Amino acid sequence: MRAIVYQGPGTVAVRDVPPPRLESPGDALVRVDLAGICGTDLHVIAGDFAGIQPGAIIGHEFVGEVIAVGSAVTRFRIGDRVMSSDFTACGHCHWCDRGDHWECREKAFFGTGTSFGPSLAGAQAEIVRVPHADTTLGLLSKGCSDEAAILLGDNLATGWAAVERSGLLPGETVAIIGGGTVGQLAGLSAQAAGAGAVIVIEPSEARRAFARANGSLAASPEQAPALVARLTDGEGVDVVVEAVGNATALAAGFDLVRKRGRIISIGAHAAESWSFPLAKSFANELTLSFAIGDSIRLRPRLLSLITTGVLDPTVVVDRRIGFAGAAQAYADLKAQRIMKAVIDPRI
Amino acid sequence: MRAIVYQGPGTVAVRDVPPPRLESPGDALVRVDLAGICGTDLHVIAGDFAGIQPGAIIGHEFVGEVIAVGSAVTRFRIGDRVMSSDFTACGHCHWCDRGDHWECREKAFFGTGTSFGPSLAGAQAEIVRVPHADTTLGLLSKGCSDEAAILLGDNLATGWAAVERSGLLPGETVAIIGGGTVGQLAGLSAQAAGAGAVIVIEPSEARRAFARANGSLAASPEQAPALVARLTDGEGVDVVVEAVGNATALAAGFDLVRKRGRIISIGAHAAESWSFPLAKSFANELTLSFAIGDSIRLRPRLLSLITTGVLDPTVVVDRRIGFAGAAQAYADLKAQRIMKAVIDPRI
Amino acid sequence: MRAIVYQGPGTVAVRDVPPPRLESPGDALVRVDLAGICGTDLHVIAGDFAGIQPGAIIGHEFVGEVIAVGSAVTRFRIGDRVMSSDFTACGHCHWCDRGDHWECREKAFFGTGTSFGPSLAGAQAEIVRVPHADTTLGLLSKGCSDEAAILLGDNLATGWAAVERSGLLPGETVAIIGGGTVGQLAGLSAQAAGAGAVIVIEPSEARRAFARANGSLAASPEQAPALVARLTDGEGVDVVVEAVGNATALAAGFDLVRKRGRIISIGAHAAESWSFPLAKSFANELTLSFAIGDSIRLRPRLLSLITTGVLDPTVVVDRRIGFAGAAQAYADLKAQRIMKAVIDPRI
Amino acid sequence: MRAIVYQGPGTVAVRDVPPPRLESPGDALVRVDLAGICGTDLHVIAGDFAGIQPGAIIGHEFVGEVIAVGSAVTRFRIGDRVMSSDFTACGHCHWCDRGDHWECREKAFFGTGTSFGPSLAGAQAEIVRVPHADTTLGLLSKGCSDEAAILLGDNLATGWAAVERSGLLPGETVAIIGGGTVGQLAGLSAQAAGAGAVIVIEPSEARRAFARANGSLAASPEQAPALVARLTDGEGVDVVVEAVGNATALAAGFDLVRKRGRIISIGAHAAESWSFPLAKSFANELTLSFAIGDSIRLRPRLLSLITTGVLDPTVVVDRRIGFAGAAQAYADLKAQRIMKAVIDPRI
Repeated sequence: MRAIVYQGPGTVAVRDVPPPRLESPGDALVRVDLAGICGTDLHVIAGDFAGIQPGAIIGHEFVGEVIAVGSAVTRFRIGDRVMSSDFTACGHCHWCDRGDHWECREKAFFGTGTSFGPSLAGAQAEIVRVPHADTTLGLLSKGCSDEAAILLGDNLATGWAAVERSGLLPGETVAIIGGGTVGQLAGLSAQAAGAGAVIVIEPSEARRAFARANGSLAASPEQAPALVARLTDGEGVDVVVEAVGNATALAAGFDLVRKRGRIISIGAHAAESWSFPLAKSFANELTLSFAIGDSIRLRPRLLSLITTGVLDPTVVVDRRIGFAGAAQAYADLKAQRIMKAVIDPRI
Repeated sequence: MRAIVYQGPGTVAVRDVPPPRLESPGDALVRVDLAGICGTDLHVIAGDFAGIQPGAIIGHEFVGEVIAVGSAVTRFRIGDRVMSSDFTACGHCHWCDRGDHWECREKAFFGTGTSFGPSLAGAQAEIVRVPHADTTLGLLSKGCSDEAAILLGDNLATGWAAVERSGLLPGETVAIIGGGTVGQLAGLSAQAAGAGAVIVIEPSEARRAFARANGSLAASPEQAPALVARLTDGEGVDVVVEAVGNATALAAGFDLVRKRGRIISIGAHAAESWSFPLAKSFANELTLSFAIGDSIRLRPRLLSLITTGVLDPTVVVDRRIGFAGAAQAYADLKAQRIMKAVIDPRI
Repeated sequence: MRAIVYQGPGTVAVRDVPPPRLESPGDALVRVDLAGICGTDLHVIAGDFAGIQPGAIIGHEFVGEVIAVGSAVTRFRIGDRVMSSDFTACGHCHWCDRGDHWECREKAFFGTGTSFGPSLAGAQAEIVRVPHADTTLGLLSKGCSDEAAILLGDNLATGWAAVERSGLLPGETVAIIGGGTVGQLAGLSAQAAGAGAVIVIEPSEARRAFARANGSLAASPEQAPALVARLTDGEGVDVVVEAVGNATALAAGFDLVRKRGRIISIGAHAAESWSFPLAKSFANELTLSFAIGDSIRLRPRLLSLITTGVLDPTVVVDRRIGFAGAAQAYADLKAQRIMKAVIDPRI
Repeated sequence: MRAIVYQGPGTVAVRDVPPPRLESPGDALVRVDLAGICGTDLHVIAGDFAGIQPGAIIGHEFVGEVIAVGSAVTRFRIGDRVMSSDFTACGHCHWCDRGDHWECREKAFFGTGTSFGPSLAGAQAEIVRVPHADTTLGLLSKGCSDEAAILLGDNLATGWAAVERSGLLPGETVAIIGGGTVGQLAGLSAQAAGAGAVIVIEPSEARRAFARANGSLAASPEQAPALVARLTDGEGVDVVVEAVGNATALAAGFDLVRKRGRIISIGAHAAESWSFPLAKSFANELTLSFAIGDSIRLRPRLLSLITTGVLDPTVVVDRRIGFAGAAQAYADLKAQRIMKAVIDPRI
């Protein structure tokens, strides 16, 4: 079958590779109808992640049709159209019982080497093997498009995680630092939950324009403090969402949040440490919380938001390609010329 | 001063009456800029409520300007523009400390006889006396119109109470039984909180049209079961809001709600008892909860929703009059020819 | 194998019956080390429940050792010591995804005919077949005795459900109507959650003494209003738990609860309807909620309470027998001479 | 009147000073029956706090009897026995309306210079002036001793704030770093809320013994990781409470908490910044939250816990003195020879 394959740092290519087979009774094979390209993939391709070997298939976002199931799969049958989480979980352990699938000891992540657990072949392929299919996959509901399902499986779950973790109340104000795909989806999530004002803080004018076109306010990092002050009578926003993943962005949040406010970080942080504003956080009773999207636990809630039309995440998709267009899409994503690309293997 | 005065069952008139004076150190006098006409007033006029005497001023919704304050008033000064709750509370007792102002032992209600506590002169007047002004009144924020403030003080607080009490989660489905002012505002409240679908169930085609024009679905009582079944795959809605105030409406809710669902009644119930569906409620683990809007506790949340534009309650206002138009407005309200009237004493 | 078998209305006997076999890939067979006798069984024996046939094995509470697993069982191996929920659920459907296993469309209940779903052979036997074993069973943790695990699987889950559904806050007062096993466990649950005062209301002096010996207050139904008034300065308790299952008990709760209080019913109600105090519930903003214990969802929380010693449910067990003692135990339970009996098949 | 007066860095003395008078209509004068000595006072005495002048009365914990009220005081009368918060709040502003009295713009703190707002004369005196008495004071309920009320006004509110902010669930494990008064009260608070295990981590053997004698486990900082690992199967505790107020203690918390766990800091932090473990916090989805006890908002809840006997904070009081014993008590507190001293001006 064809797949997008890591060739070494900086290079991907479309290659013919052997198709996967069922390996465990809980596995399913899914014929991919649509796969997503994610900002995380740029790190994979750059060679930033551990355990990624030349020849590895990349990608962790996909929807498709079940074409084979192991003997232990009870929830799905051949022919079912399914969406997937970007990681697998057993569904039955100490952590899964509590809804914390991300901490499942059998967690594995598609197409990202060993950074988040054991290595699974990626999803930018014609067929993908899905361990623990009963937990990892979900039925594709009527009313949820393939593109929406791609986003539900990763980027939207991450954006929504910020809203969930913050305990956002209707009418509260939200500043989102970072206007990439995840930041924009956090903005749409906050709007869906009744946020009073959502301000996307982002240096790129194009991304600010995108935010404005989709119901948020927008500001450059330089403009942000004044805009926040004006909108909140100088108090600061109720919630800051940090969607960049570096210390500068995180620090900026502490200047925008109100007393007793919450800063939720959904960016991926690789730095070991960071100079935390201690005295200020004490005096203002601040909360800093890190959240990772659990697209298994959040699936029912996100599906209800999508199918009822409260939230349409597909507005972020601005490139639809076949395998042949993937290398160019990765280059464009890296250069921020596009926001979100999806691959249809049949094109 | 002029005021709308109860003349005996079924009759109101504009009369000249002595203006109120400060009676307690916590009192304020407010010059009324706008007063509301509420469905509850129809009961007052009909003589349904205890303790209403001919000559009593009716009305409990108002905004205006502070023209006098007692010596114990610390929050307001002469000249402040203020909104008011429809009832007064001391702000400092066992119940007020817990945010349950409605249970305050010093609660009094404007213009409704003694049904909800001691009798206070009503607000459909040029000047109104406000006991416990520091708690009962709120500053009229920039961004909150007089009409919005009128609604915040009663009808919207009642509608929002249903959302709050239900613990509504974004994406959940809501059926609202009764498309009067309060039901429609409950619908807007549910939308503001991210409800997946809001269905207003109402016999009047005009009110169904209003619901549809304002973002909800609508159905007649006869159509409702089929629509709910279709929208929810036969499961039933997550939340039913009963906004009529009789047993028939309440019973209907039990046929529309899903297993483990919540039925919130915000209608005023005068009947002593009602034949409750016991076995079904047990088997389906249902919750029935009665909520009264506490416009003191809810004021900050509702103000934030209004001033940030998440929720515009003023769409329900369809009649603006002076004192001279009040009697006709009451007749039109009774006949359901209008939804919400406001009185400007200066017209 | 030996088992307790329904012989027709009013009669049970120990019989030799064929042992169960694996029927589905998700099944496990469990050798029973301890089985519980539950008040619900009295209804089964009385013939009150639909679909119970002479020859059916009764019982739905058990712990034991896994002796066989189907090919789809991934969580358990032969030799694992396990506890069980009193009902089965698939773990992967619309409802299970939301943690509402009780509504699972594949729910079946052990040993109770078809009242709660498809009929499963009961657990008062040497071996029991467990469908959907990965979801239905739990590993028996160190620190959780067999007797505690028996209770966790049904009676304690029911008692705790009242605490969970009520949203009990530390320091709140709780009145429990009915001092049977479930009522007493609701009392212990409320204490574990920090309840300020727990009052068990019960006509039997022996059961009141039991409540007092285990940290609660107790009163007869006649004494209850005065005791509640005294303890709460006449306000009423924050939470009433109705643990009897009839309309009289339910009605009594409305006389004991404070304004804005919650009445949680965990009794099983067979009556179609009941005369609900409507005007009072509206005026006082009451909540009535029916809760059934979901021993699958609650298992992690209850295990943590038991293994850390916060809650010891085993105090209710006052009879330990082999199969030979079961008939007498049922008679004693019916006559309220005992509270909770457990059967050890090896005795 | 007599009072404990700051004499310059390191020195206090009993002095005769002019008694306070009513200054504003919202003021009350309280004759002090009991005053507390708090660890914070050591900073005041050391001269660490801004705005503390020689001659200033220290102390911020007291109970007593109302002996005069301003014209705007409606809640209290002469002769009322009252407890007090350690700070004042207006009760009616943007922040007070939301229950965030600590952020009230009219906040002032007793006896601590200007560190927490405008300077108020302290409470280690025969009479204290209380601004905004209606909000700042509470009626001393039957069942709440003077000593309990002293603690409710500051130390216990701080300890409970950790439990409240953490959203502690019954059965969860808690590690408390620091076994001083506040740490111990946080431990008692966690127990009251149903914590599964509470581990007080403290270098002093005497304080560990105190923790053990009052229902917690205890460990030295060196022993703590092993004990936590053993109690939690290596997962880490659900909640860490940092009750020391320095970066070392805070950092230690990150080594004890489980994935997705919460670290609540109730220590006072003066350091500008601190090296925060960023990558780990992201990977484990940790939450760090700073909480200050709001003894106004928490008063009803804490009173209910105390009067119902769920929580007895007075076990920490180990020194009762008159004014004459205060200087020695401060020395003993500084040397950790005592935990909590209270001053009875009548001794």
